[in-house]
Amino acid sequence: MRLGRVWTPNGPRPVAQDGDRWVVVSDLYDPDRRLLDEWYPVQGAELLAPCEPYVVMGMAHNSGPGDRALAPQAFSKSTRSVVGPGAPVALSGVDGATAVEGELAVVIGRRARRLTIDEVPDVILGWTIGNDVTAVDQIALDDKMTQAKNGDGFTPIGPWIETDLDPSDVEIVVDVDGVTQARSSTAGLAWNVAEQLVYLTQHLTLGPGDVVLTGAPGTTAAARPGQRARVSIAGIGTLENPTV
Amino acid sequence: MRLGRVWTPNGPRPVAQDGDRWVVVSDLYDPDRRLLDEWYPVQGAELLAPCEPYVVMGMAHNSGPGDRALAPQAFSKSTRSVVGPGAPVALSGVDGATAVEGELAVVIGRRARRLTIDEVPDVILGWTIGNDVTAVDQIALDDKMTQAKNGDGFTPIGPWIETDLDPSDVEIVVDVDGVTQARSSTAGLAWNVAEQLVYLTQHLTLGPGDVVLTGAPGTTAAARPGQRARVSIAGIGTLENPTV
Repeated sequence: MRLGRVWTPNGPRPVAQDGDRWVVVSDLYDPDRRLLDEWYPVQGAELLAPCEPYVVMGMAHNSGPGDRALAPQAFSKSTRSVVGPGAPVALSGVDGATAVEGELAVVIGRRARRLTIDEVPDVILGWTIGNDVTAVDQIALDDKMTQAKNGDGFTPIGPWIETDLDPSDVEIVVDVDGVTQARSSTAGLAWNVAEQLVYLTQHLTLGPGDVVLTGAPGTTAAARPGQRARVSIAGIGTLENPTV
Repeated sequence: MRLGRVWTPNGPRPVAQDGDRWVVVSDLYDPDRRLLDEWYPVQGAELLAPCEPYVVMGMAHNSGPGDRALAPQAFSKSTRSVVGPGAPVALSGVDGATAVEGELAVVIGRRARRLTIDEVPDVILGWTIGNDVTAVDQIALDDKMTQAKNGDGFTPIGPWIETDLDPSDVEIVVDVDGVTQARSSTAGLAWNVAEQLVYLTQHLTLGPGDVVLTGAPGTTAAARPGQRARVSIAGIGTLENPTV
C-alpha cells in the first residue's frame, strides 16, 4: 500500500492511494485504518513529508562493508529540518561544502524499544526516500554532527510511504541537475535495517512517524545552491528537491 | 510571569499563574496571550512538562571556565525523552553508570535563526529547570552521545517557566534522596546563554517550545534506580523526579 500526506483546502491530510485518488484515512499508523469519504486526485496533489517525526536518526559510517568493523553509531537530525518533496534545501549561508545523500528511510509505525531482530518487522510502517543533506566540512569541526546535519530543509523525505518493500537490495540513484552522480544498492550497507533498529532501540524509544535514515552506500553527491537534487529508489519512486 | 502546562479533565492546557490559580491561556508562545475563563487551583494541580519541544539541544563540555578553550559543541536529546515533574526516569536496563545533571534550561518563544547577541532576548520565552540525565559510561563508547542521552525519561523539565530571570548568576542545587550532592551557579558556565543561542542558531533553526539545556557547572550527581533526584534553581523552583 502507498501512504502519504497531502495538502488540502482542509489542511494536511493522511492518505492512502487508491488508483488515481489519494483517499483520506482515519490514521496513518493504525493497521486498521479506515478509508474516509474524502479524496483528492493523484494528478496535481501537493504531497507533504509523508510523516511527522518526533525523532529522526541517521546511521553514521554505514556506507560499505568495511564500516562493519566499527561499532554502529547514529546521529540525530532536527525534526525542524524535515521537508517534503519539492521543498527547498537551504545551502546558501552554510559554511563549507555540502552533499546530498540518497538513503532508504524507515518510517516507524508503533512504539519500539529494545527490539529483537524478530520484532523489527512489526514496528515498521513502511519505507520512503530520504535525502540526508550534509554540510560535509562541518563534520571535522564537530564530531557530534550537530553543525553538519541540521540546516533548513536538510532532511527531505517522501514522496510517499510504501508499506511493502524488501529492503535488503533496492537500488538507489542520485541525480543532480539531471545527471546521475551515484548509483548503488542497500545491499552495500554495513549494518542492515533490522540490525540498525535493534541497535537504536537498545538506547532510545522510537514511535509512530519517527524516521531512520539507513545510510548512504556510496550514494552521495556534491551539491551547491541553485541545483535540483533527485533521489530515486526502486520500488518507491523519486524525491526531488531544489537547493537554494 | 509563571507559565506552564497542567493536566485537566479536558486534557493538557497551557496556563499562567494568577495567585492561587493556574489560568488557561490562549497560547503559551504569543506575547499577547489572553487569559481564558478556565482555571485550576495551584494546590493539587498536575503539572506537565511546561512545553512540547520539537528540538532539545544540550551544550557539551560547558561545565567550567576551562571549557572555553574548546569550541562550543552541542548534542541533541530525543523529544521522546522529555518528561514533566514527578515522572519517572528509567535507569534500570541502562548499560553502565548514570548521572543526573541540574541545568538552567531556556525555552524558546519564537523562530530563531542566525541570531546576533542583541537578538537573543527577543526569542526567549523564559526559563525552566532541566535535568540532563546521562548514561555516563556510554560517552566513551559513542562520541555522538546518542547512546548516553536518550533513555526514557532522560530529560525532565519543569515544573514551570519563569519569564523574568537574569540567567547570568543563578544558583543550581542537586539533591539525591534529600542529600545535597552539588551546588554551583550558572556564572560558572564556559559559554553563557546568549553565546550558546548565537552558536546554535548559526547551524539550525530553533522555534516555539524548543529547549536548550545550558550545561552543568559542576551540578552533577551519580544516580541509580530507586532514588529521588531533585534540582533546584534560584528564582524558578524545584524539579523532582524518581529514578526507576
